[in-house]
Parts: sequence; C-alpha cells; structure tokens
Amino acid sequence: MAAAIAEQSQSNAIAPVIDALRARLGDRISTGAAVCEQHGSTLTWLPNQPPDAVAFPRTTQEIVGIVNLCAAHAVPIIPFGAGTSLEGHLNAPQGGLSLDLSQMNNILAVHHEDLDCVVEPGVTREQLNGHLRDTGLFFPVDPGADATLGGMAATRASGTNAVRYGTMRDAVLNLTAVMADGSILRTARRARKSSAGYDLTHLLIGSEGTLGIITELTLRLYGIPEAILSAVCPFDTIEGACDATISAIQLGLGLARIELLDGVQIEACNAHSNLDLRPVPTLFVEFHGTPASAREQVDTFAGIAVENGGGDYQWAERVEDRNALWAARHDAYWAARTYRPGAQVIVTDVCVPISRLAECVIETQKDIAELGLVAPIVGHIGDGNFHVLPLIDMDNAQEVKAARGFLDRLVARALAMDGTCTGEHGVGIGKKKYMKAEHGSGVDVMRAIKKTLDPHNIFNPGKVV
Amino acid sequence: MAAAIAEQSQSNAIAPVIDALRARLGDRISTGAAVCEQHGSTLTWLPNQPPDAVAFPRTTQEIVGIVNLCAAHAVPIIPFGAGTSLEGHLNAPQGGLSLDLSQMNNILAVHHEDLDCVVEPGVTREQLNGHLRDTGLFFPVDPGADATLGGMAATRASGTNAVRYGTMRDAVLNLTAVMADGSILRTARRARKSSAGYDLTHLLIGSEGTLGIITELTLRLYGIPEAILSAVCPFDTIEGACDATISAIQLGLGLARIELLDGVQIEACNAHSNLDLRPVPTLFVEFHGTPASAREQVDTFAGIAVENGGGDYQWAERVEDRNALWAARHDAYWAARTYRPGAQVIVTDVCVPISRLAECVIETQKDIAELGLVAPIVGHIGDGNFHVLPLIDMDNAQEVKAARGFLDRLVARALAMDGTCTGEHGVGIGKKKYMKAEHGSGVDVMRAIKKTLDPHNIFNPGKVV
Repeated sequence: MAAAIAEQSQSNAIAPVIDALRARLGDRISTGAAVCEQHGSTLTWLPNQPPDAVAFPRTTQEIVGIVNLCAAHAVPIIPFGAGTSLEGHLNAPQGGLSLDLSQMNNILAVHHEDLDCVVEPGVTREQLNGHLRDTGLFFPVDPGADATLGGMAATRASGTNAVRYGTMRDAVLNLTAVMADGSILRTARRARKSSAGYDLTHLLIGSEGTLGIITELTLRLYGIPEAILSAVCPFDTIEGACDATISAIQLGLGLARIELLDGVQIEACNAHSNLDLRPVPTLFVEFHGTPASAREQVDTFAGIAVENGGGDYQWAERVEDRNALWAARHDAYWAARTYRPGAQVIVTDVCVPISRLAECVIETQKDIAELGLVAPIVGHIGDGNFHVLPLIDMDNAQEVKAARGFLDRLVARALAMDGTCTGEHGVGIGKKKYMKAEHGSGVDVMRAIKKTLDPHNIFNPGKVV
Repeated sequence: MAAAIAEQSQSNAIAPVIDALRARLGDRISTGAAVCEQHGSTLTWLPNQPPDAVAFPRTTQEIVGIVNLCAAHAVPIIPFGAGTSLEGHLNAPQGGLSLDLSQMNNILAVHHEDLDCVVEPGVTREQLNGHLRDTGLFFPVDPGADATLGGMAATRASGTNAVRYGTMRDAVLNLTAVMADGSILRTARRARKSSAGYDLTHLLIGSEGTLGIITELTLRLYGIPEAILSAVCPFDTIEGACDATISAIQLGLGLARIELLDGVQIEACNAHSNLDLRPVPTLFVEFHGTPASAREQVDTFAGIAVENGGGDYQWAERVEDRNALWAARHDAYWAARTYRPGAQVIVTDVCVPISRLAECVIETQKDIAELGLVAPIVGHIGDGNFHVLPLIDMDNAQEVKAARGFLDRLVARALAMDGTCTGEHGVGIGKKKYMKAEHGSGVDVMRAIKKTLDPHNIFNPGKVV
C-alpha cells in the first residue's frame, strides 16, 4: 500500500497537484532538483530522499487548500521548518510535497502580563528572542540550532536549559493545526491550565508532522533573570560530575543549565573554539536568580563540586565571557566535525534516569574505545540526556558497520536502564526500528490514533510509527 | 445505542459478570445499595446515579480480567478513587461496575536520586507525603482534598501550588493503564524527557477513565525547601491583588502558592476557622527557597503589594502558624458550607489568562450580586484559575434556576476571555455541554480517539465527550 502510493505520487498523482498549486501559489512552489534535494534530508546521516515538489504557503487557509488537494490525490505532505532535524524526519521516502513553512514567520502577539506569545510556525527561536529583547522577557527552549518553533514543537525539542524551564512539552500552551480532513484544530485556550477534555496539545507535540500540520503556536515566556552566572568546572570522573549534579538538583538550586562534556569533546572544543581547558569530564553550569540568590547558589554548588572531585572553577559573570563559554558549548557539533575532517558526524541521543547516567556514559565510552571509534559525548546532564557524536568515514564500510552496531547497543543500554531511545531528537526514520522495544503495545495505540486521524496516511508517511 | 447498553447492563448483562467476579474476588465485590449509592456521585451536586455493583481489585492482572469480562458483556466500568471529584465523573448513568481502586494503595518505589516514585492508583497524596516525610522529598500537587493519585491523574488535578510546581500534567512521568482491549499499556519510560513517539502519558492524564484504567503511576518529587515563609495580605481591590500577582510572577519570584479569597470567602473563613481577617480581597502567599532567598522574595513582594494597594501583612514563619493559615485556606469549602447552613455548595471553577482575571472575577461578583446569590470566590490566582461556590437551597426552584444560569454565564465569560470551562475540576457530566463551545472541531478529534481506543464504549460512558 505504502509502496503503491509512492509510485503513484512520483509519477501521475502529483502532476495535477503541482499544476493546481502553481495556479494558486505562483512561484511559491518549486520542482527544481536542488530545492527538492535541499528539503530531502538536511542534517541527518541518512541518505537523501527528495520530495517531488516544495510549496511555501503563507496562511493557514492556503494549507487547508493544499491538504485537501493532496488528500484527493493521495500525495504525501512533509512539513519542513528550518531543516535542522537529525533523524530523517524530512526525508520523502514516498515522494510527495514538502511544505516549507519558513514564510509563515510572523510573531502575531506578545502578551506581557500573561507571559505568553502567539507565533506562526516558521518563526525561529532566535527571531523570537530578538523580537523580545526590549521587553524583559525571553523564550527559554534552546536546542542549539536556530530551529523553527513549529519544528521544535513537532519534534518535542528541548536543549540546554530544559533542566529549569522544561522542553517544548512544557513551553506550548496551545497549537493550531490543519488536520488530514482539512479541518482546523485549535488544541486549547490560552489559559495556563485546563482539565477540559483530552490533551490534544500534547498529542500534536512530538507527532513529527504525522497527525496534523502546525500553523500557529502559543508559547510560554519568562522574565529575563536579574542575574546570570556561568562557570566551567572540571571533574576527576564522570561519576563525580553526575553525583554533583544530582545533589544540586535535590537541593533545589536554580540551575538553568548544567551540561557535561567528556574529555574528547573538550579536546574538540579546545581546538575549535580556541580554549585551553583540561581534557577531562567538565560541567558547564549556569544559575539564574537575583544577584544575591545566584551568588548563594554558586557558593553552594562550589561546595558540592569539591565534595565530588570537582574544582578549579572558571566563573564568567560578564555577558561577553558568558556568551563565549556558551558559544563553545553550542559549537560542540562543529567542533566535532573539525576534530576529524572529512568524517560524517552522526548525532544521536538517548535519555536515562539520572541515577543511571554515569553508568550509561561510562559503558558507552567503553564501547567506543573497544570499537576504536572517535565519538565525543556531550549531555544535558540535569535531564539524564546525552548526545554521542561518532565521527565516521562513510567510505569505510567496516567503520559504518561498527557505528550501526554501536547505535543499536546505545539504545539497548538506555532502554535496559528504563530510559528512552531519544530524549530530544525524535524518531523520524532513524529510530523507528526501536519503537517496539521501547513502547511495546504502545506502538499499537499510536498506530490506531494515526489511522483514525490520518486514515489515508498522507501526513509524513513512513515516520514515527 | 447508549440507552440500549444501559438497559441491558442494568437487567441481564451484568448478572453473569457479577457471578463471575464473585468467584474471582470473593467479598471484594458488592451489590449492596448503600455501597453502590456511595460510589454513584459523592461530592457533586448532580443527582446520584449508582452503579449496579462495586468491585475492589488489588492487581493490574485482576483489572485485565475484569475489563475482558465487562467487554464481553458490554458492561460499563467506572473507575473510582477517593470519591472527591466534583462534576459527576463517578456517576453511573448507564449502570455498570464501579471499579474502586482504594485497595491498590502500595507505594512501589521511591528513587531518591531521580526524584521520582512509583505508586499504585489508590495511594492518596497525604499517604504519599506521609511516606516521604523522612526523606527530605515531597509530592507537591495539592488539590485540597485527600484524593487518590490515580484519580488526580485521571482528572488532571492541580491545586494551590501549581503556580510553582505545575499540575498533574507536569507531575506524571509515566502511567500504566489497562486498555479496553485488555492490553496493558505503559505510556513511557522513567527518563525525565523523551521525544520517542506520541505522548500517550498526556493522552491518559485528564481522560477521566474514558480511555484506560490507570493502574500504576511514576511521579516527580521535589526536595523540601529549606525555608518556607507564608503571609496573609489584604488588598483594597481585586485588581490590586491581581496586578501584584502579575508583577511578582514577571519578576520570577519563587512563589509556591498565591491564593485569592474574596471578601465573602474571608467572612466565611473567619467564622469557620476562628480568624479575624478584614473581609476584603486577600492574598495568601507562600515562598520557598533558602532562608536568605525566601526572605529576599518576601521583601520584594511586600514592595509590590504596597504599590498595588495591599499591605498590613501577617507573616507566618513558624510551622504551626503556617499550617493554621493553610488549614483555613483548605477549609474554604467547609467554611462555605457552614456559612449558609443547609445549603448545597456548588463548587465550580474556570480559568482565564491572568491579564483577564480581575475583570472575570469582578463581572462574576456583579452577576452574583444581581442574582442575590451567596457565592464565595477563592482562586489559584497565579494560574488565572478561580472557584466560585454558590450556596444554593436546592428546594427553592427559582434559586436553582438562577444558579444554572449563573454557571452557564460564568463559563461563557471565561471562554470569551480565551479561558477554559474548567481549570482543574474536569468535565465529567457537569461540563460536557460546554465542550463544543470550548473546543469546536477538537471535540470530533476527541470522539475519534475515544471510538478507536474504546470502540464499545465500556469505559466511563457518558463522560467528557
């Protein structure tokens, strides 16, 4: 059935759709090979699978028209934000239409008293924070890449400060989405909380474009804290860094960020960002509060760190020092790339209960060493979430095979510790094969929901379930 | 169709189910009129609709057997926790089996390092906090009543400290549930976050027993703060109290609780709890932090309050003073009951964006005055959520009619302000009629999900959608 749709869409079915959309959208639809390829995989290491065409809608109503048209012709639709996803969410294994939402990038409202805003899905997080700069407010979720907020909601993204401000799961108050039958769904009101019926907001967050196309989002905002203090703190061992983090969280310290970089990642960052850090397990931390309370937290944390084999702090109180520090952290991916020139960076993530994190990281490092791979590790340690970035020579079949085995074992290790196959990257194509092991009969429930809400499987087919 | 099932279950269908369950459960099934009536409505003002029988399972496997049996005979199942719900969630409009989960009350695990615990659904929040007392940890969600944690998840409950710690939406890491086909679903792993597939945890939270029967929960815990400071602060106006709250939240003060009581509610509390507060709009606030940071927050809040027409503080630093203060707040319901002896207390709630809260409360007070009703107001003001407690003589048809009109207008007012018909009480039977106005086509999506996951409508039929 899936294969049949694919063939049909790539040959006959999509032609009338493209003709009709050309009449509606003018030059906002493209079938050019370069544009299609650019929309067919982006940052993933999975092979490129381009769509047949790319449309650039500007309104929810235009999307309704596109969905109805594609539904009538059984043409797949793959929503596209900034193209920063990592697990092949944007691939078009059955061809079809990529729906590039980058032109829906209006910030529709900022409600200062309610600490929320309403945006279109193509607004990026940096665009939003730029817009908010003079208001004293900010949007906290920060996956590193300048992703679109629609894409971040669709993949349930998070990032460095989820330990304090939560993930997209917590950041979204409501969504508007076009459903497969062409109806427009608003999942909830703008009230902070509600117990009125099933939670459709969270059903769409993390659904990766398979249940509906997000066309508007209401997001929680926060006041910019008066004081922000950052530091870099090396540790003797991974366990020490993890234990310090656990103690700090138990004490309720106002940790806004706590990131673990292993020795290999520190070496890569030193080279890339011109730093001079010791190549040992290192925490990058940040505290938010009033000047007095942030200082108090810092002192408490310093004590905890020393007890766990840490020390030799470098504090960054000035904005420029802080920015340099976090730029180095955010450039971890690019640092990894330049650490082994010519290699493909496979960016993967898992998440485990924090009590198992040290064990999980150490076993993973051991596996890396036994395979002879180069694979920096960097983690959102407060959430038990970490990334491994194997640097693979894709022309070396043996190395690619070793990497595949490594990824399978990494997921098996996380699942055995009651963790998840992905803390923040999503499933896409890359992690679909792990869903049954993680969710058991939950996969059947997911499939039943997908089948009910998208009976003809036109929304991002071949992904998630 | 629904009526047909009801008749069948009340006459023939349930008889073989009861026989079979008697063989399995012995005296853990009852058909006694008193037991059935006690399970048929509890704290709601809606008329009692008793089930045909009440079963007291002790294991997930027993529930699987009960679900399979009831499914085979088309007998409705209504899950029951502590019976503290307010909108008729527990009524049995079509008869059937009430599933009383109070004997599944084991605390299965407490993971100190991970700040979580695993409990059976019949554990109450006071039981859990009693169990945790010596660990330095606590479970924050506090709806006032000593509800079961399963029931709180099923109704997406919250309460006084949601402004800091969130609601059951935020407190549940994963759930185990028996689904209508008898399968056992575990919605997620114990990791703090995941982006692996559809969010089945949130699909079940707030589903009010209509999609699955919750048999186990993993809940987030928090470290008990070093310092807790509480205060009572009277204001000249509702607006002043709301504006002070908005400013405090924008500044990121560590407000753990901020509750608004209107003058009528203060009068009722004075009488009931032997207090001597001025009958004006009053905030009950609580700050959590270190001794220094809590004190700093208190000072900041004092300044904000004065700017907004508040003042004349009463601080409670000692545990016993603080407990007395919050006992008075928690007794608001009982205070209302004794404020007009013999009257029925109709406890209702709505939730609006906080910028509209003052307006919503004031218009509601005006409506109360015009109707000549007595109706105290008390609210979780930090969330924009408030309760109105009309005290109604149910023998006075005119008063009952006035109350019904009042409730309809209250919801219409909240919806017009982009609010919700219920912030934390749930839909049950009482608020079903408002769902279309609030959710539009979302109701169709909810119905489609219900039909897919419970095709024969055996789980709590007649509720939510």
